[in-house]
Amino acid sequence: MDYFYGPGRNHLFVPGPVNIPESVLRAMNRNNEDYRSPAVPAMTKTLLEDVKKIFKTTSGTPFIIPTTGTGAWESALTNTLSPGDRTVSFMIGQFSLLWIDQQKRLGFNVDVVESDWGQGANLDILASKLAEDTAHTIKAVCIVHNETATGVTNNLAKVRKILDDYRHPALFLVDGVSSICALDFRMDEWGVDVALTGSQKALSLPTGMGIVCASPKALEASKTAKSFRVFFDWKDYLKFYKLGTFWPYTPSIQLLYGLREALDLLFAEGLDNVIARHARLGKATRLAVEAWGLKNCTQKEEWFSDTVTAVLVPPYIDSAEIVRRGWKRYNLSLGLGLNKVAGKVFRIGHLGNLNELQLLGCLAGVEMILKDVGYPVKLGSGVAAACAYLQNSTPLIASRI
Amino acid sequence: MDYFYGPGRNHLFVPGPVNIPESVLRAMNRNNEDYRSPAVPAMTKTLLEDVKKIFKTTSGTPFIIPTTGTGAWESALTNTLSPGDRTVSFMIGQFSLLWIDQQKRLGFNVDVVESDWGQGANLDILASKLAEDTAHTIKAVCIVHNETATGVTNNLAKVRKILDDYRHPALFLVDGVSSICALDFRMDEWGVDVALTGSQKALSLPTGMGIVCASPKALEASKTAKSFRVFFDWKDYLKFYKLGTFWPYTPSIQLLYGLREALDLLFAEGLDNVIARHARLGKATRLAVEAWGLKNCTQKEEWFSDTVTAVLVPPYIDSAEIVRRGWKRYNLSLGLGLNKVAGKVFRIGHLGNLNELQLLGCLAGVEMILKDVGYPVKLGSGVAAACAYLQNSTPLIASRI
Amino acid sequence: MDYFYGPGRNHLFVPGPVNIPESVLRAMNRNNEDYRSPAVPAMTKTLLEDVKKIFKTTSGTPFIIPTTGTGAWESALTNTLSPGDRTVSFMIGQFSLLWIDQQKRLGFNVDVVESDWGQGANLDILASKLAEDTAHTIKAVCIVHNETATGVTNNLAKVRKILDDYRHPALFLVDGVSSICALDFRMDEWGVDVALTGSQKALSLPTGMGIVCASPKALEASKTAKSFRVFFDWKDYLKFYKLGTFWPYTPSIQLLYGLREALDLLFAEGLDNVIARHARLGKATRLAVEAWGLKNCTQKEEWFSDTVTAVLVPPYIDSAEIVRRGWKRYNLSLGLGLNKVAGKVFRIGHLGNLNELQLLGCLAGVEMILKDVGYPVKLGSGVAAACAYLQNSTPLIASRI
Amino acid sequence: MDYFYGPGRNHLFVPGPVNIPESVLRAMNRNNEDYRSPAVPAMTKTLLEDVKKIFKTTSGTPFIIPTTGTGAWESALTNTLSPGDRTVSFMIGQFSLLWIDQQKRLGFNVDVVESDWGQGANLDILASKLAEDTAHTIKAVCIVHNETATGVTNNLAKVRKILDDYRHPALFLVDGVSSICALDFRMDEWGVDVALTGSQKALSLPTGMGIVCASPKALEASKTAKSFRVFFDWKDYLKFYKLGTFWPYTPSIQLLYGLREALDLLFAEGLDNVIARHARLGKATRLAVEAWGLKNCTQKEEWFSDTVTAVLVPPYIDSAEIVRRGWKRYNLSLGLGLNKVAGKVFRIGHLGNLNELQLLGCLAGVEMILKDVGYPVKLGSGVAAACAYLQNSTPLIASRI
Repeated sequence: MDYFYGPGRNHLFVPGPVNIPESVLRAMNRNNEDYRSPAVPAMTKTLLEDVKKIFKTTSGTPFIIPTTGTGAWESALTNTLSPGDRTVSFMIGQFSLLWIDQQKRLGFNVDVVESDWGQGANLDILASKLAEDTAHTIKAVCIVHNETATGVTNNLAKVRKILDDYRHPALFLVDGVSSICALDFRMDEWGVDVALTGSQKALSLPTGMGIVCASPKALEASKTAKSFRVFFDWKDYLKFYKLGTFWPYTPSIQLLYGLREALDLLFAEGLDNVIARHARLGKATRLAVEAWGLKNCTQKEEWFSDTVTAVLVPPYIDSAEIVRRGWKRYNLSLGLGLNKVAGKVFRIGHLGNLNELQLLGCLAGVEMILKDVGYPVKLGSGVAAACAYLQNSTPLIASRI
Repeated sequence: MDYFYGPGRNHLFVPGPVNIPESVLRAMNRNNEDYRSPAVPAMTKTLLEDVKKIFKTTSGTPFIIPTTGTGAWESALTNTLSPGDRTVSFMIGQFSLLWIDQQKRLGFNVDVVESDWGQGANLDILASKLAEDTAHTIKAVCIVHNETATGVTNNLAKVRKILDDYRHPALFLVDGVSSICALDFRMDEWGVDVALTGSQKALSLPTGMGIVCASPKALEASKTAKSFRVFFDWKDYLKFYKLGTFWPYTPSIQLLYGLREALDLLFAEGLDNVIARHARLGKATRLAVEAWGLKNCTQKEEWFSDTVTAVLVPPYIDSAEIVRRGWKRYNLSLGLGLNKVAGKVFRIGHLGNLNELQLLGCLAGVEMILKDVGYPVKLGSGVAAACAYLQNSTPLIASRI
Repeated sequence: MDYFYGPGRNHLFVPGPVNIPESVLRAMNRNNEDYRSPAVPAMTKTLLEDVKKIFKTTSGTPFIIPTTGTGAWESALTNTLSPGDRTVSFMIGQFSLLWIDQQKRLGFNVDVVESDWGQGANLDILASKLAEDTAHTIKAVCIVHNETATGVTNNLAKVRKILDDYRHPALFLVDGVSSICALDFRMDEWGVDVALTGSQKALSLPTGMGIVCASPKALEASKTAKSFRVFFDWKDYLKFYKLGTFWPYTPSIQLLYGLREALDLLFAEGLDNVIARHARLGKATRLAVEAWGLKNCTQKEEWFSDTVTAVLVPPYIDSAEIVRRGWKRYNLSLGLGLNKVAGKVFRIGHLGNLNELQLLGCLAGVEMILKDVGYPVKLGSGVAAACAYLQNSTPLIASRI
Repeated sequence: MDYFYGPGRNHLFVPGPVNIPESVLRAMNRNNEDYRSPAVPAMTKTLLEDVKKIFKTTSGTPFIIPTTGTGAWESALTNTLSPGDRTVSFMIGQFSLLWIDQQKRLGFNVDVVESDWGQGANLDILASKLAEDTAHTIKAVCIVHNETATGVTNNLAKVRKILDDYRHPALFLVDGVSSICALDFRMDEWGVDVALTGSQKALSLPTGMGIVCASPKALEASKTAKSFRVFFDWKDYLKFYKLGTFWPYTPSIQLLYGLREALDLLFAEGLDNVIARHARLGKATRLAVEAWGLKNCTQKEEWFSDTVTAVLVPPYIDSAEIVRRGWKRYNLSLGLGLNKVAGKVFRIGHLGNLNELQLLGCLAGVEMILKDVGYPVKLGSGVAAACAYLQNSTPLIASRI
């Protein structure tokens, strides 16, 4: 039995870790194995080939690292940059803040571009900085594709365009933790140099794998980058890739099999269909929020995130009480507001292996909680709005036609 | 990967087999064991003691039989009756029909009391039959507590009262397949002689165990009952109970551990709280049906079932299309209409380890399907009605206060 | 944690239930499903086709029944015979005894052919009975292929030959519980009319499925057989086979997926390779027994079983103490001596998904236990004998060459 | 089905990752959870308290880090030392070599004390270095407790004594990856400043947690240590410890529950009994090696490891062929010889949740493989020697007495 047992399923709508499909749980339900036997490299080879597809790259080199998103960040930075290097970074929420903090602690000279929490990265400022930087002192542009704290998605194609407009050679480093496998992401087309995600997000696995993908340019940079790194050093991986044994240290056998199944599920549904499903669920959530008469923390439609929605509550309500209430009364797990928006927003994660009725159950729960905490919501209104949209847009399940 | 894979959870709302809690799946995730080692009898002893609690009996003797509900029926009948015996049985839906069919095939003289499908057992006719039967030719009154096909719950206390009014010695045999652990059931208080359920119903386990409980009077009857029986013979169980090894033939080790956990979950929540939860979900479902402007197949409130609701659809809609559509578009599993009500009703099972938001997700799905198939439902209306009730009645989760 | 926890793996060497492969456990680690959705019939269809292969039949009709071996017996008998029918049955150990007991309780006129426990069925007596029976009063010859209590395998080809020699039309009913999928079994070639097994034996699944296969002649007999049967009635299955929905009552979803994987494993290894592996492990076990200076309960080589070895202990040792000691000291589960051979034999089951080193660990354990209980065994002697044979006969694993 | 399927259990005898007990697999078979709900901190609190017991410390501060052993090394070093710091490190095999390599890459001034592979750390040289170092330029003594590549256990009590003898303030950093929970380890008594292990070793979990424990002195050192660190920085953990939420970034929910169960199993058996079991299995293995006429790579008894035995093969045999053969023919996974001893040794891991008969199965397998590859072993000899010892020394299982 669990700690604090409640009947029925837990409704997990934090923006990570997300729900694990039953078939992935099954795949991971296994004893350890000798990772030096022929079986593990044989499987690893397929994994490395296939994770490239989720980044939409053919030229990139992927690294599957036994770590979390925080470790994946460190891997991206330390392999490509040297202490003192100038980076341009956008602070738009808690996760971009933490990444910037990491960049500072790693000794980089971080040029922070701040926006209100709820706005996207200010790319005009990026443009002006690049314009001025004729000496190419900027070594990297670091951007969080989807800021999980505020539900803001940045426009990466535009970042690339600006870099190109100024023919600027800075590396383009992207945190895709809450985007890759869920939002449109095109590593090669957008000229991303390092992209990364974590297993517990849209891949719908347990925490434990940071997946980092490096462009040829990033690999080249790693040869001269002077940041201290050992555990996170790509060099060790590359050495074992050449040997065909792939692992410089012990991987989690269970996560490898889990990743194999997770990828199989993604490809069975079709990556573009997966992205379309996220778009559908994101829009349905936003329609519900609107129907409740609440505001999205994200200030403009162009930044709306299809993986997480941060909902602003009226000043007389503590959003943390909404989260607490969900857990205590409805076995619902929502995301707290973090840092600057603590108490002001609660978050609905709608990423990973999730479908319409799961989301609608969550939305119905949120309505009841809103009423519980004294907000004058019209019960059913959000669900009605979401249903009206979903009933028109949900396709038949491909395998069941 | 599954046959006909679809993203997200399957929403399982057939009235059995029902959703299995994750902790029960965990408990069953194990290798076989020698069932003659000391461990299995030690655990079995606790199971036999504890299943008596779900029947609310202290004097009864339980049998945990590796079979389904159909086998449990056969166990109840063949151990207590002899070919040619007269039984009174109520035909009110597909499952009572099947039990009556079994009674006939086993050679009993079945006195069938028929009602419209959607009505409860006609207890006035029972009264008149017992009144006439001064010779006590009626050997057993057989009744399905909750007819799963029509969502009708019979009044067992009243059956007992009628038997007592006429001081009739007939055995009182109850199919509690879709009631026990979910509806109020009191074996001792109501003088039930044999009650039975199946593991895949309110116990929320896989199929594979028929659980039968016999009163002292039923055990006494088994000494003279002449129906052929071997596999289902209680005598073999009783012999092994005395030996302390408990099992006349190999039990499923996995189901035993699953049952242990399922009982622990029931007791942790509190059996009466579990019953109250089912009452809450049942009422919420009926309010939604009403809001949709549809009729309950169950004709009077006194028979409303808190474990399954059979919903009548207008004549221009094929209810089977609703079920098909749910599976094909929303990964939702609803119950078909069976036999006389095929095409006319679809069924929402709301039994087992289930909570409010799961049900609300299902109700939202049903609304969309109704619209899909051309019924002019107001989207959100059923969810609104259910939420209005649930928001007022759902308690905090006991362990989380 | 388990009841009576001990470190390391339990060494499960009872002749059933046997070790479940990890991939089968994985396949079964899943929620319930609606068995009326298209997925379950689609899978069931493949199962029914594929179980025919393990019986080596193309003309037989299989039934996968939610029951145990005891229920499978009852299914075989009640569907083909009528009360009063004469059967010839061979009593050679506890399981044949129990089957004969069932036959009597079902009202047949059982002509019992007894042998010493440790001998095979006396087929000479069968021959003389058939010779005398020109009136064809014998309706069925019932034989246990492999008597699990004594480790005796009967010669089914010879039974068929005798039946043919006398052109006797009696049905040929075979208990293959501890043989099918492990010993050579040829339903069509040997003209077996009903064969049956249980999931927890060589199929290496949990208990819960009795698998019965009926020849066309047996199906024909079922049309006139008068034994009472409802739960076990093939007619209900055949009706649902025609409908294409396959299940007259709720199957265990988990066991269906488990069976699918178990069959896949059998076919991946190759059924004939599986049988050869059992032959190898059986012989290795017997060589060890011989090296210990102990006697096989099975009196002649022609009857040696490749799935279980019953080992006779000297009169001054209680074989039950060996079993107890194995469990208490070495986490080893051996089979007790049953009934007539209680205290005199212990049994080593070597069936199911098992390999050489597992068996050798068990044999080493038995040696230590023998010493523990005062038998002057030379430690290592049995393992040495088994290794000498296995080292010469074990092939490379096919998939790893 | 697995890659390269073979029948029966895989016999996993590499010195990590090791066999996972079934109850630990069960505990981990679960969906993700919100790690910010009250449940995860409540459980984490018990974990942090209980892991201290496996280090035998009351004053230490544990860190459970989502990483591997390599990452745990980096955590130990970077939190306590600064670039340029002088460390004394012992190179005695592949893992001490790798740790030294890491120390160099992190910028320390590593004073390497080399021994032959097969010998323990040369503590006389340590003594002389400390004696000379009156200026206390040595900032840390780094030692691998148990060198997994050669099966050598170092004497940590003696290291402490030498440090004390010279009143040297150097930090005492210990890699306990293949020792803690299996060999006698006493953090407080031996004045160890940082000790670490990995989840996939004696804890018998999947890979994915590096568990590091810091003495008050090490914590103090971390305040001034200048090595770059972010992901591995203890400061972030300490901050969240104070907040009572414990996790600076997302932990693996599954591993937390797995660790809870693993610790429960350790305490149920008793940590000292676990250590005694390892001593027993280690000695049994060495007796077998001796009986085969082979040499232990470990040159003196004082260094014999109870968790892994590296076996030297005659020059005409390639030890890698032994490992290959085990996998291809007997589904046995042995450890390869690494680096300097590649081709010369194969390794038998005997750590983690393992019992006597599992080991004996492995030893029997090794005998057959030795014969397979042309070594004139007497089959059964090693098993006989091991059995002779184990039959005298194995206690009854505590819970089963």
